[in-house]
Amino acid sequence: MNKINVGILIFKDVEVLDFTGPYEVFSRTRTVKGANSRRNNDSAPFNPFTMAMDKDLIVATGGLKVIPDYSLDDSPKIDILIIPGGYGTRPLLNNENLLNWIKKIYIDAKITSSICTGALLLAKAGLLDGKRATTHWGAIDALKAISKSINVITDKRIVDDGIITSAGVSSGIDMSFEIVLKLFGEEVANDTAKYIEFHRSKNIV
Amino acid sequence: MNKINVGILIFKDVEVLDFTGPYEVFSRTRTVKGANSRRNNDSAPFNPFTMAMDKDLIVATGGLKVIPDYSLDDSPKIDILIIPGGYGTRPLLNNENLLNWIKKIYIDAKITSSICTGALLLAKAGLLDGKRATTHWGAIDALKAISKSINVITDKRIVDDGIITSAGVSSGIDMSFEIVLKLFGEEVANDTAKYIEFHRSKNIV
Repeated sequence: MNKINVGILIFKDVEVLDFTGPYEVFSRTRTVKGANSRRNNDSAPFNPFTMAMDKDLIVATGGLKVIPDYSLDDSPKIDILIIPGGYGTRPLLNNENLLNWIKKIYIDAKITSSICTGALLLAKAGLLDGKRATTHWGAIDALKAISKSINVITDKRIVDDGIITSAGVSSGIDMSFEIVLKLFGEEVANDTAKYIEFHRSKNIV
Repeated sequence: MNKINVGILIFKDVEVLDFTGPYEVFSRTRTVKGANSRRNNDSAPFNPFTMAMDKDLIVATGGLKVIPDYSLDDSPKIDILIIPGGYGTRPLLNNENLLNWIKKIYIDAKITSSICTGALLLAKAGLLDGKRATTHWGAIDALKAISKSINVITDKRIVDDGIITSAGVSSGIDMSFEIVLKLFGEEVANDTAKYIEFHRSKNIV
């Protein structure tokens, strides 16, 4: 089975659940139902990995220590790009290297998405201009301030306008399930939610 | 503010969301409301950390690479012990070192808890004998097989019978909120859930 590469960006002070929620959903999705199919990767449609500016240890919010799988330069082709948030996004808003990399990946990626304040990075890269988008409730003004042309949505958990943005932290789990649903249908999404015993939020899109 | 130490066990093939869900909740809880209090640790009541058999790199389910903060031998005093699950629990069921360590920590910990198949380790350590307990739906029989004296509950997300056990994966987030609620009340739990935009499950205990 040809796997879909899911590249999850991590950085100093990335919010833990912003990136581990999607990591969990994409790593545990199986096209074959039940618990046994999770014992190996045979029916796993996704290949999730983390990448960072370089391969040094990343300390996430709260102190969790993570080693990225790849640097931006050596990551495999990314089919689905996931940009999480956290206070660590702020110092990156003027990092031209990273913003250019995001723009470059966006061109070839099948899906580009953000969780929480990851939207600020997409906005700074100019990718949300003229689009509907959302972010964490505490960062609505920050997102508006980056570009007047973004139509900032405040009453939806997930906004899909070519680029998929989601609200704060846990919304990333729901967003990941929406992507699973879009690519593999309701049954695969529901079976995966059942496996990880996650109650998907209703009326979120 | 004297912090409550939350020790989260990690091991090879630990399920990602089993340990990162609680990590998120305990690391982002604040006794002062709002987004600004999350910018520092001043009003953080918990000090979460990870510990493992030794301090080598841990590869979790799906390949996420984590560096533990402590080994079992050098961890600080643990007030709240969190035992996550995952397929990696199975090879540990006969690890006397680990089971003895769990029994030792349990004696002095304020709260001992498990997520998912972490309950199998507590059961093997003999700590669930005569108690009500739960686990992932796919591991109900495995839990029953460890000890006939465990009253295995199959219709609750969280079971608190001196030791707190929870159902699969995402249930650990709800369980963490129940602990926050127990120690700091509804307002702090709700404000933290609002910050991480998590919809707590209803009627779970």
